[in-house]
Amino acid sequence: MKPTWETSVTDSINTIYLLFSAYLVFVMQLGFAMLCAGSVRAKNATNIMLTNVVDAVVGSLSFYLFGFGFAFGSSSSSTSLTHHIINNNNNPFIGTHSFALSDIPNNTYDYSFFLYQWAFAIAVAGIASGSVAERTHFAAYLLFSFFLTGLVYPVVAHWVWSVPGWLSPHYSGRPVLFGSGAIDFAGSGAVHLVGGIAGLWGSIMEGPRVGWFDAFGKAVPMRGHNATLVVLGTFLLWFGWFGFNPGSFDKILVGYPGSTGQGNWTAVGRTAVTTTLAGSTAGLVTLFARRLLVGHWDALDVCNGVLGGFVAITSGCSVVEPWAAILCGFIAACVLISLNMLALKLKFDDPLEAAQLHGGCGAWGLIFTGLFANEEFVVQAFDADQTVGARPFGLLRGGGWGLIGAQVVELVAIVVWVSVTMGPLFYGLSKLGLLRISIDDEVAGLDVSSHGGYAYETQTVRSDQNYPRFYADYVRLKEESTS
Amino acid sequence: MKPTWETSVTDSINTIYLLFSAYLVFVMQLGFAMLCAGSVRAKNATNIMLTNVVDAVVGSLSFYLFGFGFAFGSSSSSTSLTHHIINNNNNPFIGTHSFALSDIPNNTYDYSFFLYQWAFAIAVAGIASGSVAERTHFAAYLLFSFFLTGLVYPVVAHWVWSVPGWLSPHYSGRPVLFGSGAIDFAGSGAVHLVGGIAGLWGSIMEGPRVGWFDAFGKAVPMRGHNATLVVLGTFLLWFGWFGFNPGSFDKILVGYPGSTGQGNWTAVGRTAVTTTLAGSTAGLVTLFARRLLVGHWDALDVCNGVLGGFVAITSGCSVVEPWAAILCGFIAACVLISLNMLALKLKFDDPLEAAQLHGGCGAWGLIFTGLFANEEFVVQAFDADQTVGARPFGLLRGGGWGLIGAQVVELVAIVVWVSVTMGPLFYGLSKLGLLRISIDDEVAGLDVSSHGGYAYETQTVRSDQNYPRFYADYVRLKEESTS
Amino acid sequence: MKPTWETSVTDSINTIYLLFSAYLVFVMQLGFAMLCAGSVRAKNATNIMLTNVVDAVVGSLSFYLFGFGFAFGSSSSSTSLTHHIINNNNNPFIGTHSFALSDIPNNTYDYSFFLYQWAFAIAVAGIASGSVAERTHFAAYLLFSFFLTGLVYPVVAHWVWSVPGWLSPHYSGRPVLFGSGAIDFAGSGAVHLVGGIAGLWGSIMEGPRVGWFDAFGKAVPMRGHNATLVVLGTFLLWFGWFGFNPGSFDKILVGYPGSTGQGNWTAVGRTAVTTTLAGSTAGLVTLFARRLLVGHWDALDVCNGVLGGFVAITSGCSVVEPWAAILCGFIAACVLISLNMLALKLKFDDPLEAAQLHGGCGAWGLIFTGLFANEEFVVQAFDADQTVGARPFGLLRGGGWGLIGAQVVELVAIVVWVSVTMGPLFYGLSKLGLLRISIDDEVAGLDVSSHGGYAYETQTVRSDQNYPRFYADYVRLKEESTS
Repeated sequence: MKPTWETSVTDSINTIYLLFSAYLVFVMQLGFAMLCAGSVRAKNATNIMLTNVVDAVVGSLSFYLFGFGFAFGSSSSSTSLTHHIINNNNNPFIGTHSFALSDIPNNTYDYSFFLYQWAFAIAVAGIASGSVAERTHFAAYLLFSFFLTGLVYPVVAHWVWSVPGWLSPHYSGRPVLFGSGAIDFAGSGAVHLVGGIAGLWGSIMEGPRVGWFDAFGKAVPMRGHNATLVVLGTFLLWFGWFGFNPGSFDKILVGYPGSTGQGNWTAVGRTAVTTTLAGSTAGLVTLFARRLLVGHWDALDVCNGVLGGFVAITSGCSVVEPWAAILCGFIAACVLISLNMLALKLKFDDPLEAAQLHGGCGAWGLIFTGLFANEEFVVQAFDADQTVGARPFGLLRGGGWGLIGAQVVELVAIVVWVSVTMGPLFYGLSKLGLLRISIDDEVAGLDVSSHGGYAYETQTVRSDQNYPRFYADYVRLKEESTS
Repeated sequence: MKPTWETSVTDSINTIYLLFSAYLVFVMQLGFAMLCAGSVRAKNATNIMLTNVVDAVVGSLSFYLFGFGFAFGSSSSSTSLTHHIINNNNNPFIGTHSFALSDIPNNTYDYSFFLYQWAFAIAVAGIASGSVAERTHFAAYLLFSFFLTGLVYPVVAHWVWSVPGWLSPHYSGRPVLFGSGAIDFAGSGAVHLVGGIAGLWGSIMEGPRVGWFDAFGKAVPMRGHNATLVVLGTFLLWFGWFGFNPGSFDKILVGYPGSTGQGNWTAVGRTAVTTTLAGSTAGLVTLFARRLLVGHWDALDVCNGVLGGFVAITSGCSVVEPWAAILCGFIAACVLISLNMLALKLKFDDPLEAAQLHGGCGAWGLIFTGLFANEEFVVQAFDADQTVGARPFGLLRGGGWGLIGAQVVELVAIVVWVSVTMGPLFYGLSKLGLLRISIDDEVAGLDVSSHGGYAYETQTVRSDQNYPRFYADYVRLKEESTS
Repeated sequence: MKPTWETSVTDSINTIYLLFSAYLVFVMQLGFAMLCAGSVRAKNATNIMLTNVVDAVVGSLSFYLFGFGFAFGSSSSSTSLTHHIINNNNNPFIGTHSFALSDIPNNTYDYSFFLYQWAFAIAVAGIASGSVAERTHFAAYLLFSFFLTGLVYPVVAHWVWSVPGWLSPHYSGRPVLFGSGAIDFAGSGAVHLVGGIAGLWGSIMEGPRVGWFDAFGKAVPMRGHNATLVVLGTFLLWFGWFGFNPGSFDKILVGYPGSTGQGNWTAVGRTAVTTTLAGSTAGLVTLFARRLLVGHWDALDVCNGVLGGFVAITSGCSVVEPWAAILCGFIAACVLISLNMLALKLKFDDPLEAAQLHGGCGAWGLIFTGLFANEEFVVQAFDADQTVGARPFGLLRGGGWGLIGAQVVELVAIVVWVSVTMGPLFYGLSKLGLLRISIDDEVAGLDVSSHGGYAYETQTVRSDQNYPRFYADYVRLKEESTS
């Protein structure tokens, strides 16, 4: 049966919206690659960029084969008008269908949805790559990336985003948690906290980089080699976040002629605005706070501050007003600065601050949503059909304890799940001597020890002009001196 | 009342179109950051990139709090079918509503419109940042960016783009200027000329960089440190301009079922084509002209030429044919080359040529539109309802003096307004010693004096291999020589 | 006559889809610029980036004036419901209308289609630029780029993609080749093979770079100067490929109310997925294969592997299942690795491996489609109206010899056509001494010999701190030594 023009219009609009959002989310992988490369020393630049490329290529296959199925593979024998699965037979902990895209497209998901979720999955490994930078065996990274993208992350995604998931706010025939379910709209928890906790365990198991402390136990600043790449990466991540957050509605136009659904266009636009304001506020607060603390205007701190604001708003971006987003960003900056000071005190070395940034601000994002979610927006985003009736919303907005409770449960559940899966993996690799490279290789740099050469060959430039003449002179002088 | 499926379709399509255009315009901020970084010396790269990040984060808050309200905040008690405000009570000089998004969404503007305009606002400061590069106190820059994005630019935007604005070509219950109003479609004047004139005053008040002239008063070439970043920035700006110009229609689908409106899809596509042709022509003309003038094929000149063509076509992109765009680009290149020669003669040092490029080509863009605007396209773009009847169009196309007159009035008004606001600001900062950094700091570079360190740490790469051995040899030689 | 709201909806949706896809394809030009710059030595970085800028600006004018007309300019006096030209008077070898966009928009093409095709056209020259890198006169490059974008490529595009083209799979009143026509959906042949063969001839006529072989005839590794740029370029190309392949449907919503057409949204999404999987698989295979062959994990090889997978899937992306795309990528990696080994044996020096990558994998892509095209998808993509009846499809899927025959004919036709046009051009330029620069210029680098200076000025950074003191010391030492 051919679809009518009207249903074709709806499907075309939503496909454009979701696919182009997916493309933007994919740009975040480039953003991570550039941010990471700029934040490490030049001798490890190729290594960290290759890990980001590998996240994408390994992630494509592992997410295609297993990950998507674990995350979203549900039996969809009966569906409601708004395409939500109403089926008590589905597992609330892990998906069990759609491996290798076996039943895609079905009446719930099309290929565009797979692509969008794929871009999310590879981002998780990209986040964690920063924590283990500059000292990890490449083969260990491959295994870790495959495991994280193919299993650990998808399970959390199933809990939170798949309609039958036990943390999902969508009604699916079972009661939702605390009458509410957790609201983790674009994944402060499911993506950033997962990546941050994975990175945390990796960093702990590996220990600080060689030279991060001097003989007296004092931390030695270990600056990245290229601030331009850091700014490039940050702006690309900002650009990509416009796909990540506003894109997470999946559909901008809900319903077909005659249905009771409605469109999300205003909410999509508002989400882009809250995202922008949270990141901007966090960046600005960091700028001034770091000026007071360290005495200069630090560009790299501002970049991380902006990202911290984005991470924090990612959970509640669709359900808060712009003013609340500003508050969210303000506190996100404070969280990040505090955690970075704590990390220094604890001698915890995460080269990209990924555990602090994605873990810490991600956790704050979950709590923030539980405190500030607006009733009207919650209903709009998660209960357009009003099948559930009165829903809990932000505690500080008078919405009761249901939502904040579910948010805390999600936070704890993610920390536990990622710890019990990634912790043993890192521990085992470490015990087997497969995790951390040798000190010699670390001093020389991963690029020359594992990847066949340094990232940069710059001697041909200025040296062509000045160096040779100077050197020739020097050789002559040396000959004279020894003769 | 829930919207019907039909109105939802229209709103969803327009939201996708406007939001993704906004995302592209945002990429221009990254483009400016890269272009500026590559065009300054390495010792100031972090500083100039931080100014571009700060434009975005400061701009978010100032435009949210004040700017958007000053620019577009109108009482919208009565609106026509095509969403134009027909209300004589609105101030034609400055907006008076919608501060902190207080009444958004309303029946004229949604959040997506705010985001689109935000991306424009931050670009203005990004343009001017180049003019004051490599020698400005960072705190002064912060103040300047806040003032420009929050007040100076929004007022001009209100004049030109807000329906009640005194320069607006939209009928709003008052007669439009000279029966025409100014046509500054995407802002050769409102964005680029504003930024260029602001930069001009900044550059004049600061004076040339240390070392820009040798002891004999002859200009010393002061090359940027990285051509790759210049090309990267130029291509990103090109990419972003596809959001800037074709996106400025705001809506690609005008009207709902039964309305008399029509779609803009052909005009949107034509605008992308005229933009491309103008930039390309200007780049090509610059390539050959500079080859004749300086004897080599200069990549950086071509990049600036392309941008000059884009700046010039930005005003008339929607109302001229492709062949006219080629003419526009041709003359834009001539304007830019001439102004750069003039600047050298006048010992005017603008590190990014921003005053010449955005100011000069922006001014030419306004005039060009007054000369070449096509009647049919003018009616399409500004008078779809045909409420005004016969409109003036391009002087050389037989459209009379109305349009060109309004264009000249806009040009003069912008120059005067930006001069009387930004001139005193720069003058005051300069008199108070807050504008320009000390000579010592300038020679050392802003990165090390204000931002905690240089942008690049490259000694770990090649030096690891060759330099130390050479240096050790040198030390031994030195010891022998002195012993 | 004003269009109805319904037709406006269809046209608006398709314009958004095609324009934003065009913008993404344009990003590929930036991707090529960065990839090429990073893959050459620093002394030629400005040169290769300028060639990529010039491809865009020269291409805009040549494709506007001639190229588009040669490719798609058809008499469209009568059109079918689905906008296909049914007119036997059109030339199957070259287009004859629409020069300088003279009759655009017409009832077949709008401006957005021109922009989309323009972005394709400039990519062809971008591909070939890599093959002749580091040793070509800039003036020769200008001529070559103009000729390739304005004539050679457009003719092939006419054969394959224009409805009256002799290789086209679209029914146009004439029988299609072997009852099938060639399926080169987004141009493994028409774009990549054309660029690759053009580059092959350029590389052969120029010969290897100075220093590529040592005195004993052994190849000396000639590494690019910046791995960061290579990764940046690769990710940008990946991003752009999402416009290139899924965008090539031209329309995501086919038909108007009451028509028999249907939408392409599922096929568009599936195309994005097959593209991703093919590139990822090829990258992963290359990672492990090169690890086995050369002993380290080579990031640059992986990048080229990913691109090889994309090139190969570009022909059949719309007509195969995801699993087939994985197979396509697997073999593409093998093809690329083998051809690179062969090139080394034959002492063929293509600095970007463009001939091997775009030529070799492009050829494989044509064959792959002939072997694996799925019947249902072929009908969907090329015969929605079912005017032709049973169509040939993939040989290994039981679809007979018609399609694979047509694919081979396209492959041979492209190789012959590009060889007889570009071969003599390169030969003539070479004989006239206009093709290759002098050895002195090559050793010094094109940037300083043709473009006014090197791409990087980095001595101001670390040298500011260490070099001057060291140098001053050296000068003093020298004076002592000579006195």
